[in-house]
Amino acid sequence: MSARKYSLGIDFGTESGRALLVDVETGEEVATSVYKYRDGVLDEYLPDGKTRLGNDRALQNPEDYLRVLENTIPEVLRSANAKAEEVVGVGIDFTACTMLPTDDKGIPLCVTDEFKNEPNAWVKLWKHHAAQPQANKINEVGRTRNEDWVPRYGGRYSSEWFFSKALQTLEESPKVYEAANRFMEAADWVILQLTGEEKRNACTAGYKAMWDKRSGYPSREFFRALNSRMENIVEEKLSTMIYPAGTKAGEVTAQMAKMTGLKQGTAVAVGNVDAHVAVPAATVVGPNKMVMIMGTSICHMFMENEKVYVDGMCGVVEDGILQGFYGYEAGQSAVGDIFAWFVNTCVPAEYSDEAKKNGMDIHELLAERARHLKPGESGLLALDWWNGNRSVLVDADLTGLLMGCTLNTKPEEIYRALIEATAFGTNKIIKSFEGKGLRIDELYGCGGLPKNRLLMQIYSDVTGKEIKVAESGQASALGSAMFGAVSAGSQRGGYDTITEAASKMAGIKDETFKPNKQNHGIYQKLYAEYEILHDYFGRGANDCMKRLKQIKTKAAL
Amino acid sequence: MSARKYSLGIDFGTESGRALLVDVETGEEVATSVYKYRDGVLDEYLPDGKTRLGNDRALQNPEDYLRVLENTIPEVLRSANAKAEEVVGVGIDFTACTMLPTDDKGIPLCVTDEFKNEPNAWVKLWKHHAAQPQANKINEVGRTRNEDWVPRYGGRYSSEWFFSKALQTLEESPKVYEAANRFMEAADWVILQLTGEEKRNACTAGYKAMWDKRSGYPSREFFRALNSRMENIVEEKLSTMIYPAGTKAGEVTAQMAKMTGLKQGTAVAVGNVDAHVAVPAATVVGPNKMVMIMGTSICHMFMENEKVYVDGMCGVVEDGILQGFYGYEAGQSAVGDIFAWFVNTCVPAEYSDEAKKNGMDIHELLAERARHLKPGESGLLALDWWNGNRSVLVDADLTGLLMGCTLNTKPEEIYRALIEATAFGTNKIIKSFEGKGLRIDELYGCGGLPKNRLLMQIYSDVTGKEIKVAESGQASALGSAMFGAVSAGSQRGGYDTITEAASKMAGIKDETFKPNKQNHGIYQKLYAEYEILHDYFGRGANDCMKRLKQIKTKAAL
Repeated sequence: MSARKYSLGIDFGTESGRALLVDVETGEEVATSVYKYRDGVLDEYLPDGKTRLGNDRALQNPEDYLRVLENTIPEVLRSANAKAEEVVGVGIDFTACTMLPTDDKGIPLCVTDEFKNEPNAWVKLWKHHAAQPQANKINEVGRTRNEDWVPRYGGRYSSEWFFSKALQTLEESPKVYEAANRFMEAADWVILQLTGEEKRNACTAGYKAMWDKRSGYPSREFFRALNSRMENIVEEKLSTMIYPAGTKAGEVTAQMAKMTGLKQGTAVAVGNVDAHVAVPAATVVGPNKMVMIMGTSICHMFMENEKVYVDGMCGVVEDGILQGFYGYEAGQSAVGDIFAWFVNTCVPAEYSDEAKKNGMDIHELLAERARHLKPGESGLLALDWWNGNRSVLVDADLTGLLMGCTLNTKPEEIYRALIEATAFGTNKIIKSFEGKGLRIDELYGCGGLPKNRLLMQIYSDVTGKEIKVAESGQASALGSAMFGAVSAGSQRGGYDTITEAASKMAGIKDETFKPNKQNHGIYQKLYAEYEILHDYFGRGANDCMKRLKQIKTKAAL
Repeated sequence: MSARKYSLGIDFGTESGRALLVDVETGEEVATSVYKYRDGVLDEYLPDGKTRLGNDRALQNPEDYLRVLENTIPEVLRSANAKAEEVVGVGIDFTACTMLPTDDKGIPLCVTDEFKNEPNAWVKLWKHHAAQPQANKINEVGRTRNEDWVPRYGGRYSSEWFFSKALQTLEESPKVYEAANRFMEAADWVILQLTGEEKRNACTAGYKAMWDKRSGYPSREFFRALNSRMENIVEEKLSTMIYPAGTKAGEVTAQMAKMTGLKQGTAVAVGNVDAHVAVPAATVVGPNKMVMIMGTSICHMFMENEKVYVDGMCGVVEDGILQGFYGYEAGQSAVGDIFAWFVNTCVPAEYSDEAKKNGMDIHELLAERARHLKPGESGLLALDWWNGNRSVLVDADLTGLLMGCTLNTKPEEIYRALIEATAFGTNKIIKSFEGKGLRIDELYGCGGLPKNRLLMQIYSDVTGKEIKVAESGQASALGSAMFGAVSAGSQRGGYDTITEAASKMAGIKDETFKPNKQNHGIYQKLYAEYEILHDYFGRGANDCMKRLKQIKTKAAL
């Protein structure tokens, strides 16, 4: 029997990291292993258990990332009975923007004695939301100066992103800022650990750090306008060498080989972002196909040959998803989270008892009952803003709305209305892109939600588009493995292009979801109502939601 | 021991009738008895079990009303150990408009062989909603002809009311219409049975049948414009002798004395409506005090010395509540019903289990948790239109709305928001009256809801007014007993005026609800938001709710 060839993908999530060992020739997922971060998400205290964190902080311990490597890689090799030399390449993906300050050797400042008690020295996780004042300042200065990154970010730079977080460090902890030789994406930091090479990836640089392939980072004048001490951040604290996905970052070092059981010299791809890396894992390697990464939230990704500015998108980045294309990203900040909220908060005992009796998940029971409803039959309509609106309004202060309630309204009707509302939210994003002349022919789903067939059919009926579903249940890790194979190249047992890798390693399920014409007709009417409410509450005609939030904030004092 | 003096009040509800024997001197409620109508609400078949009814029908069998007398009166006399001669007077109240056609002897057409299979020959219950086309026609003709009843009815005559139901009979069953010697309120029919006298009461004539003390019924020209065969309805099928509340209608006949155990010759008051009769039972016998009959829905009643037209009120009738005043009525079509819906539809097992464990009603548990929330703290706001809006929009096609939802929204927060929404609805009604210069100084509550102390405090905080609560848990039956005593007069052991009766027989609880200033301040802000949404969705700026209903109706086909 000839030796098999594997590629290794590692997906760093919010609570844990997952390694996936994939057969390079067939795409077979041979072994997987998950390591739950020991320190998890730090939102109340630092790991010392003493240093109290302020509101809206979400930090991590970078040592947890190394523990992922240390624990999961040997585990997948062992369980697949694979030899180190059979692994041709490694790829990783990360949440983003998840960033940290390091010294000149790449050592995180948070592990030094000097700064270990200083929250701003730790990893700021993507959902660290305490840099909103800094984001506001960045947007104000950006708009005033008419910066060219403004339209690339759909008109608004998020508090979650790179310079918001860096500026917060400067304003709150200038010593940490001064001591930082680098501010890095955690993805790039892990690659630095694996290979000894600092190779910044184009995806996070483009979507989170204002970098553009043609014009680079913003000017010194822009940064000086934010804060005079920030003037030279690019020269002093960033690397300006940026590499597109699939590029080989380097090779596994001797030290890392020892720690992980991988062979020294194994090819490693530059880091990437979890949503973006899922695109080729859903077989999509070109334009006009939108990939939806569907879980607690939805990320909408697609590629085009041209750059167009769309209000309220998360970003457009050249080479941002795959080299050679403009990559577009948009998103909904809560989808599965809304259904989970509903199931935990609003479903009566009668339903949970019945689900239990029938050995069903409560979602299954609700979906089974909701399946028999016709579109529009409940008379309900919702706005899917339980966690604000990420695209196209980019407004965290918007809230969820349900209307059409009567004394006969049933839980399964509300459940279906919530699913429909998230489908309308996706449709609004699609229409925003299409309104700028971009063509979206097909949808692809991956992540946890596509197993809900009712939901997938509703998305198809609402959008009027066919939806295909990625075969892999772990699309991000698979995508990373695919880029790992590309970083190795065909000469070393991998592939020379991601297109080739996708054709061999990625697949979609046989069952696709095709729009029902009659349902689509009714949903067009309901969507028209959704749009009216969307604009009324979302675009300033009635800022009731924001005023309610202000009253709420005051009441909580 | 000298003989006691009693008065008997009988309250005819939707599902049952209740007799209450009250001590005339102290107001002590000595005995009560309930009879559940054998035939209940006929909404699918006639009592023959064969004749299928159309949509939105709600009929009753008048024989059920006689069974109430036959069963409950002997029962209360027996259980109080009261002698027939100790009962000085009898009063009754009824749902309205609940009406029926009879022959010239007062025999209901539905008990005759000729018409027993004809649905239009039966009692049309208040909530019979099948006469909407006729109501539409009446409103159109009324507005075109600029009829003076239009403003008295707040601009809109309901499908539930007298001429809508009579016109439906004429259009659908002209033979029944022709055969009817009288169309009567069921209240007046029961009085006819008890006394042998046809004495129409001013309350139902005024609030339901367009009668006005000064101008009488509408003109022949108006009725001809509706339908040429209806031209002479007033002369041919109605009595034009109308009597205000407290008037003695007559005396118990020999036949009725035998059936009920009452003494022949006992004074009987003219009939009345359940909500209106509750007003003096809450001690209110004059202007500037609003009585809220609070249960599944709320009726808002108050009196003034002058007549003012208020858009969207149910009606203003001279002598309509008490003689000498203009009686105003408004209402909310669902209040307790909304909380019942919520508890049955939206409260998770965790909550119902805990309530069970603590031996609490689920409402108690939710109220206990909601009590700790500050106004505005949940960020939620609702429109209380789960069963449409009765006042001030008078629109059954409006639906409920909840906004401000987040992933952290809890059941007790929604529960409180729903209570607040109904309080805003009441406040809107109060403001509508006050906006026309009417003064409302105090609120009085009666019915089932006032036992929810959280709700009462919220109503006080929202309206900024003190609320007193009627002592009696059966205010309608007590009010009827009070009017029974007045019909007897002081010479026969009762009272000469309802004011006197109220001072002896009615009372309010010691505990009243006073507005908390700080809460009132926050609620004024929230109410401002409620009003914006109220007008936006209720006054045509966005008829989304109606379009959703149209889509719903079509989808159900």
